[in-house]
Amino acid sequence: DQQWVEEVDKKSAHFAIDAAYAHQPSRDDRLIVRSERPFTAEPPAQLLVREQNTANEIFYVRNHMPVPRIDEDEYELEIVDVHGNTLLQLSLEELQTQFEKSCVQTAIQCGGNRRTEMDEVQLVKGGVWGVGAIGNATWCGARLNDVLQYAAEQSGRDVKQVMRDVRHVCFEGLDRDVATDTHYEASVPVEVTEGSADVLLAYEMNGQRLGRDHGFPVRVVVPGVVGARHVKWVGTIRLSKVESESHWQQRDYRVVQTLDEAAYEAAPSIQYMPVVSAICDVQRRGKLVQLRGYAWSGSGSGVARVEVSCDDGKSWQAAELLPTGADAGEDLFAWRIWSAELRVEHARQVMCRAVDASYNAQPAHVRDVWNARGLVNNAWHR
Amino acid sequence: DQQWVEEVDKKSAHFAIDAAYAHQPSRDDRLIVRSERPFTAEPPAQLLVREQNTANEIFYVRNHMPVPRIDEDEYELEIVDVHGNTLLQLSLEELQTQFEKSCVQTAIQCGGNRRTEMDEVQLVKGGVWGVGAIGNATWCGARLNDVLQYAAEQSGRDVKQVMRDVRHVCFEGLDRDVATDTHYEASVPVEVTEGSADVLLAYEMNGQRLGRDHGFPVRVVVPGVVGARHVKWVGTIRLSKVESESHWQQRDYRVVQTLDEAAYEAAPSIQYMPVVSAICDVQRRGKLVQLRGYAWSGSGSGVARVEVSCDDGKSWQAAELLPTGADAGEDLFAWRIWSAELRVEHARQVMCRAVDASYNAQPAHVRDVWNARGLVNNAWHR
Ligand SMILES: [Mo]
Ligand SMILES: [Mo]
Repeated sequence: DQQWVEEVDKKSAHFAIDAAYAHQPSRDDRLIVRSERPFTAEPPAQLLVREQNTANEIFYVRNHMPVPRIDEDEYELEIVDVHGNTLLQLSLEELQTQFEKSCVQTAIQCGGNRRTEMDEVQLVKGGVWGVGAIGNATWCGARLNDVLQYAAEQSGRDVKQVMRDVRHVCFEGLDRDVATDTHYEASVPVEVTEGSADVLLAYEMNGQRLGRDHGFPVRVVVPGVVGARHVKWVGTIRLSKVESESHWQQRDYRVVQTLDEAAYEAAPSIQYMPVVSAICDVQRRGKLVQLRGYAWSGSGSGVARVEVSCDDGKSWQAAELLPTGADAGEDLFAWRIWSAELRVEHARQVMCRAVDASYNAQPAHVRDVWNARGLVNNAWHR
Repeated sequence: DQQWVEEVDKKSAHFAIDAAYAHQPSRDDRLIVRSERPFTAEPPAQLLVREQNTANEIFYVRNHMPVPRIDEDEYELEIVDVHGNTLLQLSLEELQTQFEKSCVQTAIQCGGNRRTEMDEVQLVKGGVWGVGAIGNATWCGARLNDVLQYAAEQSGRDVKQVMRDVRHVCFEGLDRDVATDTHYEASVPVEVTEGSADVLLAYEMNGQRLGRDHGFPVRVVVPGVVGARHVKWVGTIRLSKVESESHWQQRDYRVVQTLDEAAYEAAPSIQYMPVVSAICDVQRRGKLVQLRGYAWSGSGSGVARVEVSCDDGKSWQAAELLPTGADAGEDLFAWRIWSAELRVEHARQVMCRAVDASYNAQPAHVRDVWNARGLVNNAWHR
């Protein structure tokens, strides 16, 4: 009867999902696993601020689907114009040899970093994240703009002509949901690709080839922009008149007060991220408390100041910003590790806040930034 | 004796200042004058939000010195390279006819706008300003980059070569302090001139030639950046390896907690401005309160949302953002006029706050942004 058929189909769908999740990469056991399917994990906060660049093995992982198995010899990156015509197909070797290798030190932060603090105001919809859904690395790869220029030339056209009606650049991953046959996809407005930092098609992370959890062989890196647009395992770049119509562009990664369609449609997609900071390590010796944390601004203006307080914000003390190790002007999208020593006379909560060089400051309270998906929490950290 | 000589010198210096302040422009009597020498004035808040573009006659005025008397036929703009050599001298007519005329709708905001609210926390050093030290206009002129390109060509060099060691672009005004023989001067980092908005050498404001209080015949317009860099009556543009050494670059327009040298030196110069908003008009009809105000973000990401509250921030209601009238993408540095209608059950303070499209939000309290010069106050407005 009908029920029997449904049971079999359900079972078979489960098997398909199991099969898709076979052969997932092995992971460092220091990671705090937040979900298994899809795999999401963050490092312990203390580990995060030991070094300027986060070690690849403990860099946070935010997958939306099973990690695809990609043979680097068969990998192809396709560039599609605004009419749906393929302009170019590139192998990994071509990507690595035909374009200048460009490097940028930048943080990448998940839109949901520090989400769990929002639950204390009112429950939000979204996976659990502490302060570790952010990491900083030196990424190297080909510049998107160089590849687009070449794609235009190879198809016998001028890049200005190719880009004329383009308002958004869509990135499709090779990761795939077996139940719905959907690939992950996200887009950035074309202005982002014309911004002060080059968008990279990155094949190296801290001097190593990308790990499978970080997009092997190629991921998009868009300095300053929410992690969700740094599409991993990128297979297709589509020039478009409109934003990506994917679930993740239209019904996620937007700041909404309610979960209805109208709220999503009225809210702009998150792109550049505001100034944020967090305390990641607290060591007490008598009345002296050593604090260490990170601060970051997606604006690319740089972090101007980090301050700490142990009297509920009545007084603030400047933290020391540690050097990024990058050349001046080349680290504006990098995070800053900071350290501070506070004398605490009474048992008090410690807190930190940062200001970027555009004098954007963090809001004081999580309730001031609360939203129904728990995104972009940049309140003072306590 | 010596005292007699000193008295005469003092008197003579006073006469010189009087003479410098002769022939100042006549001003609209709706302006609220904040100081006479130098002249600073702002419009009544209600007038500010009647139209998208602020009428030239009531646009705030922040002079640092007497307004210079400039004969347009004798005006010359000089471009000086990094070695101190003149690359080019341009007449007003050449500036207006040899370069494409480019227009931008942008707000310009004084670094001290809303300073007086800071005095309530602790007295600050700086002139009085309410919420009106900001205005929005359509500015037209030649692009700085076009002029630099032409200056390089005219001197037989490539613009890349001319710009090679340039880190800052200094703008010197023709306004002059007679006592010290100093001209007003300020600079922007070269990255600002490479940003998403063109820096203009503007000779038109809302379709009219510049008024004398607004820099006639030519002022600099740097969308998104603090008013102090929009140098009026610009006479010399100097390419430089270092920031301007002027008082206004080094000992003003920086966010400091104390007024000592070390504090100024450690603080970066204010350039791009953070998200801000203000309530400018309140009309009550029974329990309904009509609010009107402005919101602006110097980031160029645009204003995403304005909210109002009448229960001390416990609940917030979205305001309506009025259209800018500019084409999409061409108004990212313009302010947004907003309006809202609130039902107030009990006598309460009304307040507003804005969020920009990078999800930078305004801090809740003035005490969170207080600084010794009373600059960049972008706390929620009450
Ligand atoms: Mo994310
Ligand atoms: Mo100013």
